Amino acid sequence: MAKTPKKSGLSGFPEWLPAERLVEQHVIDVFREVAELHGFSGIETRSVEPLEQLLRKGEIDKEVYVLRRLHAEETGTAADDSGADPARTLGLHFDLTVPLARYVLEHQNDLAFPLRRFQIQKVWRGERPQDGRFREFYQADLDVIGQDTLPGHIEAEVAVVMAEILDRLPLPTVTIHANTRRLSEGFFRSLGLEDHAAVLRCLDKLPKIGPDAVRELLVGEIGATQQQAQACLDFASIRTRDDSFAQRVRELGGTGEMIEQGIAELTAVLERVEAAVPGVILADLSIARGLDYYTGTVFETFVSGHESLGSICSGGRYDSLATDNRHTYPGVGLSIGLSRLVSRMLSADLARASRSVPTCVLVAVLDEQSRPASDAVARQLRGRGISTEVAPTATKFGKQIRYADRRGIPFVWFPGEEGSSGEVKDIRTGEQASADPATWEPSARDRRAQILPGGEDGPTS
Amino acid sequence: MAKTPKKSGLSGFPEWLPAERLVEQHVIDVFREVAELHGFSGIETRSVEPLEQLLRKGEIDKEVYVLRRLHAEETGTAADDSGADPARTLGLHFDLTVPLARYVLEHQNDLAFPLRRFQIQKVWRGERPQDGRFREFYQADLDVIGQDTLPGHIEAEVAVVMAEILDRLPLPTVTIHANTRRLSEGFFRSLGLEDHAAVLRCLDKLPKIGPDAVRELLVGEIGATQQQAQACLDFASIRTRDDSFAQRVRELGGTGEMIEQGIAELTAVLERVEAAVPGVILADLSIARGLDYYTGTVFETFVSGHESLGSICSGGRYDSLATDNRHTYPGVGLSIGLSRLVSRMLSADLARASRSVPTCVLVAVLDEQSRPASDAVARQLRGRGISTEVAPTATKFGKQIRYADRRGIPFVWFPGEEGSSGEVKDIRTGEQASADPATWEPSARDRRAQILPGGEDGPTS
Repeated sequence: MAKTPKKSGLSGFPEWLPAERLVEQHVIDVFREVAELHGFSGIETRSVEPLEQLLRKGEIDKEVYVLRRLHAEETGTAADDSGADPARTLGLHFDLTVPLARYVLEHQNDLAFPLRRFQIQKVWRGERPQDGRFREFYQADLDVIGQDTLPGHIEAEVAVVMAEILDRLPLPTVTIHANTRRLSEGFFRSLGLEDHAAVLRCLDKLPKIGPDAVRELLVGEIGATQQQAQACLDFASIRTRDDSFAQRVRELGGTGEMIEQGIAELTAVLERVEAAVPGVILADLSIARGLDYYTGTVFETFVSGHESLGSICSGGRYDSLATDNRHTYPGVGLSIGLSRLVSRMLSADLARASRSVPTCVLVAVLDEQSRPASDAVARQLRGRGISTEVAPTATKFGKQIRYADRRGIPFVWFPGEEGSSGEVKDIRTGEQASADPATWEPSARDRRAQILPGGEDGPTS
Repeated sequence: MAKTPKKSGLSGFPEWLPAERLVEQHVIDVFREVAELHGFSGIETRSVEPLEQLLRKGEIDKEVYVLRRLHAEETGTAADDSGADPARTLGLHFDLTVPLARYVLEHQNDLAFPLRRFQIQKVWRGERPQDGRFREFYQADLDVIGQDTLPGHIEAEVAVVMAEILDRLPLPTVTIHANTRRLSEGFFRSLGLEDHAAVLRCLDKLPKIGPDAVRELLVGEIGATQQQAQACLDFASIRTRDDSFAQRVRELGGTGEMIEQGIAELTAVLERVEAAVPGVILADLSIARGLDYYTGTVFETFVSGHESLGSICSGGRYDSLATDNRHTYPGVGLSIGLSRLVSRMLSADLARASRSVPTCVLVAVLDEQSRPASDAVARQLRGRGISTEVAPTATKFGKQIRYADRRGIPFVWFPGEEGSSGEVKDIRTGEQASADPATWEPSARDRRAQILPGGEDGPTS
């Protein structure tokens, strides 16, 4: 290949070194393992959708990357790619929800509903790569999609799966904040504030402008009395680990069927998630974002000490993912911004790989003539699932040990004379003992590259 | 979300149903597992490269998809995306080699060489989706990259890893055909044909136009004598499982240092691959494609009965993946066109999933009040790694069993009265027995969805 000029990284397109990729792969593996344990099917959709599909979610249309075949215009042979017709122009998907809606409609006759699906794929957004936002990043989604109906208890179930995923990741305390549409809407209505969506929009500004400014908005824009405004603020300040939120809502004057329904829903979510992963779930009645899109429970998730990341995992219940002449598809879904989370895990040293390569053992090579003997030892170890490399060159053993050391490979194997079994050295302790490749076993901790909480020993790169 | 019109599939952008995706995921898992067992690090590169990087491999420039931010031109704020400047315009990568070259140069100070890396990612080519060619597909690459030097025996090593991967896949007989640049070049030179590249280009047409037409080309275009042309054709017909190819080359008059070097190289590859995976490797001196790009051993791989697919896995030794003022990076690499292979595995029913979902057990629900008891059973089973769902609705047990049956879930669990352990039914045989969720164990075959050779029982979709 021709001489390639050195390029510096492209802003907004993250790329990891091998040891960093091990952390990302671990997060992906945990997500998949837990999702499959709960019977979710992994699917992938194509990376492109017709532009007209992507533009349905109007608010982010500027962020779409449109594809064009190079020279398509010059040759005049590819009108379908030229960008004029949004039905035939292709763009890269910016989330996994639009593709899921299309996938469900397209394959509805071949899918069994409720469909339990997870999806971990890259998405692209052409926004300015500021504030640590990426232009290409992994998103990891978990949804249950019903055909025409979907039982309410699925809302708790999806939260349980996500709680178990987050619980297994090397993160500081994670809290899933939950609220439900019926509770907020019912409460505002029972106060006499019929435009509940407008109240939500005001409360949504709480973290940014504070309670006094929100009070002014409620009074000035919505026409609430001081008393009503205070009740809304008090409502939004309720955060409880157990069902005591219900009592506090009632004390604030909340009554009526819708409120009681909301209380039952949220209580069920708290109980079910608490039973699966104690301490992770919190009723937080200030959660407003998305409550006009979502129609049931809504979730946002925060990492202790990393609130600046915003919600790392959001979602909830929606009444219509997609619809055609025959069916409507309601769903419950949660989504992790995986690359953003991994990026923080790496930059804040929350997690690191115990070594930069999968290799557990490096088999040394005495000279090139005896390479087959080293190969044979490696083959035996691999046959028992132990990741093994053979030294690439028969240099001095000191250099071969340095090869292992630089990569964090814990063991170097010195094959014995023909017939004898050889010796294995733990290069961290210097301990060396004779060993048989048919039976030798590393500790479970050394067998595979481990993802350790930050601060523990690990490679520097 | 708004009403979504039903769309038919986009030609060239394959998408699998859940049971089909299990087959694809299996192929990816096997690739990763074997690569890691040999100490290869998995990396991913960003999906985009500057257009000028992509155009270095001139011959496929028309196939590049160029990205443009929607409305970038109208707003005039994004000159970097507008497509005028190939240094700032971004395109989707069409293989994983160009990105690897850039990655190696960009991160050379943070990588340990020789770098053993595998990479499984989607690539995009804007060609017409004819002949079963895809516009978006998975490629799975395996390369060892040295800094300035790379020992010759790595050529055999990479072939061993790929042979083990292919050996574990549910495919008919796979044969890796190997040849080496020195052997071909040395032989043509020893015949007195100095323009060895021209001879290779003629021989490359053998499968298409046959030996008589190739003979005419050799005589007419290269100026070979009838005897030289016949010797070339005889050389290209040599296919041996063992090192007997060497004797036949010598009998055809091949002599000289270069030929002997080539014989030693190819013999080492045959021996080392044969030792790892008996029966998979074949010396095939007709392999010409890529011999002008590759500088050592070259590989092509065919599946018995599916020769129409062409080579499913190709590659070899190249002297310069990338180079800058300080270093040159030689490498050995092999690449599988994974989506194309999976597509054939599915369409020819070479492999199928034993069920369409990961779920092993469906826990039935007597009524919504007792759902927590069903949840508790599921939690116990999952705690022991058994994929478990709880029935979404407390319908009649017959309907719940049909829910499992439609998805191929083998077991339905009926929780007992409080305190008792319940019963589990194998819905394939109808056998039902009392069981304890703390100890019950399915067979290894049922525990996880298996990928079975075609023809065995599996779901229909």
